[in-house]
Amino acid sequence: MTQANATTEPTPTPVTVLGLGDMGRALAGAFLAAGHPTTVWNRSPGKGGELVERGAVRAASAEEAVRASGLVVVCLVDYDASDAVLEPLAGALAGRVLVNLTSDTPARSRQTAAWAEKHSLSYLDGAIMVPVGVVGSAEALVFHSGDRAAFEAHESTLKALGEPATFLGEDHGLAAAYDMAMLDFFYGAMGGLVHAFALARAEGIDGASLAPYLNTIAGILPPIAAYTAEDIDSRTYAGEGANLAMMAASVDHILHTAKDRGLDVSQLAALKGVTDRAIAKGHGPESWSSIVEVIAADH
Amino acid sequence: MTQANATTEPTPTPVTVLGLGDMGRALAGAFLAAGHPTTVWNRSPGKGGELVERGAVRAASAEEAVRASGLVVVCLVDYDASDAVLEPLAGALAGRVLVNLTSDTPARSRQTAAWAEKHSLSYLDGAIMVPVGVVGSAEALVFHSGDRAAFEAHESTLKALGEPATFLGEDHGLAAAYDMAMLDFFYGAMGGLVHAFALARAEGIDGASLAPYLNTIAGILPPIAAYTAEDIDSRTYAGEGANLAMMAASVDHILHTAKDRGLDVSQLAALKGVTDRAIAKGHGPESWSSIVEVIAADH
Ligand SMILES: NC(=O)c1ccc[n+]([C@@H]2O[C@H](COP(=O)([O-])OP(=O)(O)OC[C@H]3O[C@@H](n4cnc5c(N)ncnc54)[C@H](OP(=O)(O)O)[C@@H]3O)[C@@H](O)[C@H]2O)c1
Ligand SMILES: NC(=O)c1ccc[n+]([C@@H]2O[C@H](COP(=O)([O-])OP(=O)(O)OC[C@H]3O[C@@H](n4cnc5c(N)ncnc54)[C@H](OP(=O)(O)O)[C@@H]3O)[C@@H](O)[C@H]2O)c1
Repeated sequence: MTQANATTEPTPTPVTVLGLGDMGRALAGAFLAAGHPTTVWNRSPGKGGELVERGAVRAASAEEAVRASGLVVVCLVDYDASDAVLEPLAGALAGRVLVNLTSDTPARSRQTAAWAEKHSLSYLDGAIMVPVGVVGSAEALVFHSGDRAAFEAHESTLKALGEPATFLGEDHGLAAAYDMAMLDFFYGAMGGLVHAFALARAEGIDGASLAPYLNTIAGILPPIAAYTAEDIDSRTYAGEGANLAMMAASVDHILHTAKDRGLDVSQLAALKGVTDRAIAKGHGPESWSSIVEVIAADH
Repeated sequence: MTQANATTEPTPTPVTVLGLGDMGRALAGAFLAAGHPTTVWNRSPGKGGELVERGAVRAASAEEAVRASGLVVVCLVDYDASDAVLEPLAGALAGRVLVNLTSDTPARSRQTAAWAEKHSLSYLDGAIMVPVGVVGSAEALVFHSGDRAAFEAHESTLKALGEPATFLGEDHGLAAAYDMAMLDFFYGAMGGLVHAFALARAEGIDGASLAPYLNTIAGILPPIAAYTAEDIDSRTYAGEGANLAMMAASVDHILHTAKDRGLDVSQLAALKGVTDRAIAKGHGPESWSSIVEVIAADH
């Protein structure tokens, strides 16, 4: 054995990316930027020309793409799509590592893991928690779960997508479970965000005037998430500083303002329904987090 | 005229705070901390003992409280409450400045402004955009609208609540309009937040494990708010980097995951209804912000 030379870079692992939607292109771009020989494939032609210009090899078929690399990353719109692409490829995938970064339910992840197991494939199921513009940066949170040895073998390559590459555990459904929970928060915020701009516009306030103030709201969310977690874990809802009854009154004020302006209020009406039921159960003087007793009454 | 002495502090203005709920106590505490003689009153007794210990004067009635100061701040649960307290006090309020920091609809703010105008009262209508723990700090965003001269006369005192005290304009409803729009975003996020913890728990993930990752979500919201504002103002939804169809598929995945675990899905079902209608209108390949065409179809 020769002594390891700290300045020797390992030869970059060849990587295949199946799927050149917005996210697939971002993933392939990040692998290219990190120096990995990158092979790409997409169902419909015409996507990823800029990747080819940067040195990516376009494969003529998904099977040809798979056979080009030891590490195969797939990122399609959902698992109906990724199952349809992967199922005919079980033979070609043998002896390679498959990483599925498509987002879907934990149940679908576990189903695909069972299929991979049946074919003795090394399978990691992951989730990308950031927009395309963040992929490849230090802020890019990417989860992986499933085959630990496969993760460890390819961790340095997967870090091209984001530092750190986070391994959550051997249950293949874990990345999707975290993904779904985080997206539940994200899409609540995203639904409120567009509704907020609609309400502002109806009140004569343009988006450019409102947007900077929304940073104040985004800024107070992390400490609120931290103490909400404590309430949820302890199942006690002390409500120090703000009580559900006061906050439900605010939801009602927004609902009325939006309704008076003729906006669609289905999202707000659903939220008001949840707070009404929590207050009817006696949670009015407690914290906002006590609405979990309505949302997850059986847990 | 003597020359101004830079080290001379102005005599702190006496302030009255009506309402000693969570927020009223925070406001009175901030005025006390800034050295203002502070008089307090609350409908029910027993609140604000710690303020009295710190030097606040407890008035025996709302009228006595009002007569103690030139600047009167009211912060109750809603305008039904503040109107009930203020209406009998029109005489006592004459010659003073009234600042209503209660949160409610713009319509209610304008109604109270009309009442104040009828009684020739100096009236500012405001909104506090941060939790109690932030009040009095440099991050404490507090809006004011209405009587500009009253704002200018008391700006330095109002800065005790937060720097900068922000004057939005002479329409008394403006602070409430910004308040409602910002809360629309806030409560969307807050509804999603608790649902996220409920979903995580149903998947075997405790709050403490999920919470730190939610900071990644909160961190991506400010740039998203900025480009959403551009889409809304220009009424073009280019969808670079992420399209509505893909995002609606994610909403559907969360909904299915939550439903399979027996959670209440009314909030997600309402959001899915909005995205379904936007896709039916042809917005699938556009950006998430195109859902505004469903939320505010008539604007
Ligand atoms: N974009 C983001 O900001 C973002 C962020 C985090 C996670 N994600 C996740 O990343 C995944 C991909 O998102 P995206 O933004 O890349 O979506 P996208 O731009 O809509 O691309 C969808 C991709 O799926 C392919 N596809 C759909 N149905 C197919 C089928 N039956 N067979 C083969 N290919 C099929 C499309 O191929 P064609 O070109 O042939 O239609 C395309 O490559 C999703 O699970 C999403 O949740 C995205
Ligand atoms: N807490 C926060 O984090 C926060 C943040 C931003 C804005 N705000 C806004 O601040 C305002 C006050 O909130 P809060 O947290 O202080 O609420 P709170 O703790 O529930 O206090 C409510 C206050 O309203 C009074 N009140 C209710 N009905 C009344 C009536 N008919 N007559 C007289 N007084 C009445 C209560 O008096 P009793 O003690 O006699 O019941 C109490 O002083 C709300 O508009 C809220 O939206 C609060």
